[in-house]
Amino acid sequence: MKLSQVGERKLTYYVTKKFSIPFDDCAFLDAGEEYLLITTDMVNRKTHFPEGSTFYHMGWYAMAVNISDIAAKGGKPIAYVAAIGMPENLEKENYEEMLEGMEKCTEEYGGKLVGGDTKEADDVTIAITAFGKVRKDEAMPRKGAKPEDAVYVTGSIGRGGAALLEKNLEELLLIKPKIKEGRMLAKSKVVTSCMDLSDGLASSLYQLAKINNVGFIIYEDMLPVAEIAKKHENWLELALYYGGDYELLFTVPEEKGKELEKKMDIKRIGKVIEENKITLIKEGKEHKIEDRGYEHFRM
Amino acid sequence: MKLSQVGERKLTYYVTKKFSIPFDDCAFLDAGEEYLLITTDMVNRKTHFPEGSTFYHMGWYAMAVNISDIAAKGGKPIAYVAAIGMPENLEKENYEEMLEGMEKCTEEYGGKLVGGDTKEADDVTIAITAFGKVRKDEAMPRKGAKPEDAVYVTGSIGRGGAALLEKNLEELLLIKPKIKEGRMLAKSKVVTSCMDLSDGLASSLYQLAKINNVGFIIYEDMLPVAEIAKKHENWLELALYYGGDYELLFTVPEEKGKELEKKMDIKRIGKVIEENKITLIKEGKEHKIEDRGYEHFRM
Repeated sequence: MKLSQVGERKLTYYVTKKFSIPFDDCAFLDAGEEYLLITTDMVNRKTHFPEGSTFYHMGWYAMAVNISDIAAKGGKPIAYVAAIGMPENLEKENYEEMLEGMEKCTEEYGGKLVGGDTKEADDVTIAITAFGKVRKDEAMPRKGAKPEDAVYVTGSIGRGGAALLEKNLEELLLIKPKIKEGRMLAKSKVVTSCMDLSDGLASSLYQLAKINNVGFIIYEDMLPVAEIAKKHENWLELALYYGGDYELLFTVPEEKGKELEKKMDIKRIGKVIEENKITLIKEGKEHKIEDRGYEHFRM
Repeated sequence: MKLSQVGERKLTYYVTKKFSIPFDDCAFLDAGEEYLLITTDMVNRKTHFPEGSTFYHMGWYAMAVNISDIAAKGGKPIAYVAAIGMPENLEKENYEEMLEGMEKCTEEYGGKLVGGDTKEADDVTIAITAFGKVRKDEAMPRKGAKPEDAVYVTGSIGRGGAALLEKNLEELLLIKPKIKEGRMLAKSKVVTSCMDLSDGLASSLYQLAKINNVGFIIYEDMLPVAEIAKKHENWLELALYYGGDYELLFTVPEEKGKELEKKMDIKRIGKVIEENKITLIKEGKEHKIEDRGYEHFRM
C-alpha cells in the first residue's frame, strides 16, 4: 500500500504505537523538577511553501512551527539544532537568508541554535529539533481533558486558511508561536489538556478526543473567527478544516476558565462531553464536525 | 556563489561562526553534574545511499551516524527523535522496514525513539536528532589536544572506503558506532580531545588541528589499515581520504596512552606537534597530508 493511501495521521499513529510514544506535541524527558521538552518538524520547499516564498520565510517558518510545539506544552525554548538539506546549485546568499530567518525567530522567542548539519539534497529541506523546559507541575500534555471541562482557543482562527487562499505569504509563513500565552496558561496550573492548532480545529479536536476518550460540543457563534477569514464566504470551512493557525487549543474546568478570561485573550468555544462525538451547534442544530484537515500523503 | 563552489566544510564554519557554536560532534548542554549531548545528522537517499541500499540499511545508517557522534564525546545514548520525509508513492512496507532498521540500531546501542515527524518530500530524507548523557568530568570535546600528546585511533581504518569501492553495502551502511570504546575512553579521564572519523582521517586531523591550533605527525607504518582495505592498491588513499570509518580519533598524553593500550583495541598512529602542519612519515620521508576527504557540495 502506498503512503498516499495511508495518510500522515495514520502513519503517525503507526509509529507512535510501534515505539510506544505518547502522541503529543513534544516528548517529555525527565530532568529533575522539570521536563526537557523535545520536538522535531521537517519542512520541504516543494511540499510546504507556495511559490513566491522567500528563503527568509522558510527559515522563520521551519523554526516557528517547532517553537509552537514547545508553546503548546507551556515550555520556554532553550535550544535548537537544525539539519538542512539543499541542492548544490543553490546560491550561498539564499542559504544565508534562510539562516537569517531562523535567527530572527529565535531572537524573538528565546533559545539558541547549538548545532546542526548541512547536507546536499534534491530540494530545500529543513528539519529543526527544538528543546524547551517546563516545570513538571506546570506542563500541559494533550492527555487530561475531562467531561464538563470548557474548551478554549487563544487569539483567533481561520487566519492560516485565509492567508493560503489569498496567497498572503507573510501571514501564512511568518507565524507567531504562542510562547507567552502558553507560559501564562502553564503557570495557572488549571489547564487539563493543550495542543497547538497547526492541523486545524477539527483535526485537533479529533486528536484530543482520541487521546482522552471524550467528545466535544463546539458552538459556531462562539468561534473567534479572524477578520481576515470572515471576508471569505467559506469562513467556517477555513476556521474548522484548514489548519495553519498556530493558536493554542486547551481545556480547563469551567470556573477556572472564567478566571483566565479576565487576564488573557482567549475565547471559550465549547465543552468536553463524555460521548465520543464531535458536534458543532449552529443556529440551534447539531452538525457533525468531520475528521479532516490539512494532512500530508492525502490525495 | 553556488553552494557547490563553497563546500560543506566551509558552510559549516560559516554557520558555527554566525551562531557562535563550538565546532564539535555534539552540542553540550548543561545538566547539573552531566552534559546533555545533542547531535543531528540528515541523510538523503539520492546523495547518501548507493543503488541497492535497502530501507533497512537507510534506517540503521541514519540512526548510527548520530550515535557515533554521541560515542565520540564519551556519551551514553538516551533518546532520539526522527524527522522523516518520503515521497507519497512509497510503499508502506518500505517505510516499516526503515523504522525496523532504526529500531534495531537503538536496541543495540541504547536509548529510545521518543518522537518524530513524517512529511511528504521528493525523496527519502531522514534527519535524526540524538541525545546522550555524559558526566562533565568524563566528557571528551574536540578541543584540548596538546603538543606532545600521542594520537590514537580505535579499531582499523580504510574500511568505509574499501566498502564503497567494492559496493559492499552491509559493510558500508550497517556501521557500528563505538559507544563501548567511547565510554571506556571517557571513564579513563585522560583523553585530551576526541572526534569520530566519519569524514576520513586527513579531514579529521585538519579539523582537530584548526580547533586546537596544533599540527600532527602521522606514521604510515603505524596505521591500522583494515584487511578489507589492504587488498586495494590505493589502501593509503582509502585510509586517509575516504571517510566512512566510524572509529574514534583521539589524543592523550603519551604515558596514559600506553596504559590504555593494555586494555583496549587502539593503535597509536602519531603525535601532536606545535607547528601548524600535518605530515605523514613514509619510508623515513615527510609527506604533506592534504586537507581533503568526503564532502558534500564539492564537485
